[in-house]
This record gives sequence, structure tokens and C-alpha cells, in this order.
Amino acid sequence: MINKDPNVRETHDLIASDLVIGTSVYDSQGNHIGQVEKLILEKRGGRISYAVLSFGGFLGVGDDHYPLPWEKLDYDESLAGFRIDTTKEQLEGAPHFARDQEFNWDAENGRRVYDYYEVRPYWI
Amino acid sequence: MINKDPNVRETHDLIASDLVIGTSVYDSQGNHIGQVEKLILEKRGGRISYAVLSFGGFLGVGDDHYPLPWEKLDYDESLAGFRIDTTKEQLEGAPHFARDQEFNWDAENGRRVYDYYEVRPYWI
Repeated sequence: MINKDPNVRETHDLIASDLVIGTSVYDSQGNHIGQVEKLILEKRGGRISYAVLSFGGFLGVGDDHYPLPWEKLDYDESLAGFRIDTTKEQLEGAPHFARDQEFNWDAENGRRVYDYYEVRPYWI
Repeated sequence: MINKDPNVRETHDLIASDLVIGTSVYDSQGNHIGQVEKLILEKRGGRISYAVLSFGGFLGVGDDHYPLPWEKLDYDESLAGFRIDTTKEQLEGAPHFARDQEFNWDAENGRRVYDYYEVRPYWI
């Protein structure tokens, strides 16, 4: 494993946030579809509730934010990015919100996100 | 609650990574001691293993990296920063590594960090 950073950025089990945020995301066909914009974290419990993918628009203009369960992101060293096992078309129908829009991170919306991706919510 | 960002950055339960990374940290006496440099995340499980505090040095030069259990960070809106219930002196004796040094994020070192802060490791 080659580290671009002198600090460990990735081990078998762990990954540093600077290798996650701003990192490219590829769909199941290997198309570049966007990047990880930010993570939404639990204050208590310390879990990653969602990774927020920016997707759509053109050259970063008009793109929307797609909350994803963390489990959907699979880091691929050869791509230096994340793969998700979702097609672009499936993603287009997923829960999202406009970049400049306030999203309601409540349990019901959270459930909708996890249900869409068929990931069991960690909080139930 | 006032949000500087049009997106929700903080709710009762959740906090966005852009409000965490780069954010000031204050010790138990309210002294500014550094900032959150990055988070170290579990690839599987999706937990925050550590928050890495940069502390020491002068104007960001020569500061070291101090891994902290996430539970140690308490966001204080009035400070727009995190408080930790640790003194500067206690922190000086804590496990740390040089900014340009590779840290071994193994279970034994992890245990040392959690033990130092008297936080029960989440993985046991």
C-alpha cells in the first residue's frame, strides 16, 4: 500500500477523514458520478450516520446532495475513490436535497434513505 | 440555534463533518489548545475511532497529533468549538505522534489512548 501522506491514511480497518471527504465516487459501472461532500456524524455514539454524495449538475453547478449509508461506500485503492453498487439511474430516484436546501435529518428521513439502499438502519 | 450554513450542520443528535474538522478545541479551563485535524474512521462498522487533535507547537508549526476518543469532544455552541474535560497538563502526557510521523493505529495503541482518557473502548 502506498501512502501519499506521511501519516497513515488507510489501514485494513481504518481510514482517515481526509481520504474520504472530497473523494470521488464511482457507480457500479465504474462511471464517475460525484464526490463525498461531507459526513453526518452522531454526537453521542460516534457513528457515521450518512455520507453525503454530491451528484448531478454540471461541473459542480446545480448538483444535489444524496445521503448514503456509510456501508454503501467501498474504498477502491486502484481508483483512489469509492465504489457504490448502485447504478446512476437508481441513484437518480434516491432521496436527495438541493445543495442550498436545508435537509431534515430526522429518523423518518433517515429510514427512507436506509430503506432505499436496502441497508438495515444501525439504530434499530 | 443559528446555522451559518444553509444546510443543517448541527441538530440535537447529529453534526456535520465540516463543523468538526478544523474546529477549535478548548481545555477544561477554557483555554484554546488546538484544533481537530481529522477523524479516523472504521471502514466497516462506521464508527469514529479517534478524533485527531493538533496541539503544541507555535502557530501551527511543530504541533503534534493527539488521538482522542470521540466521546471526549463536547461541542459548545457558544464557543463554536469543542470542549474537552482534560487540562493542558494532562494532555501533554497523552499518547501522541509528530505531525510528519507515521502512527500505528493498531488495537494496542488504541487501547493506550482510550485507557489514558479513561474511556471504555467501544470495540471490547
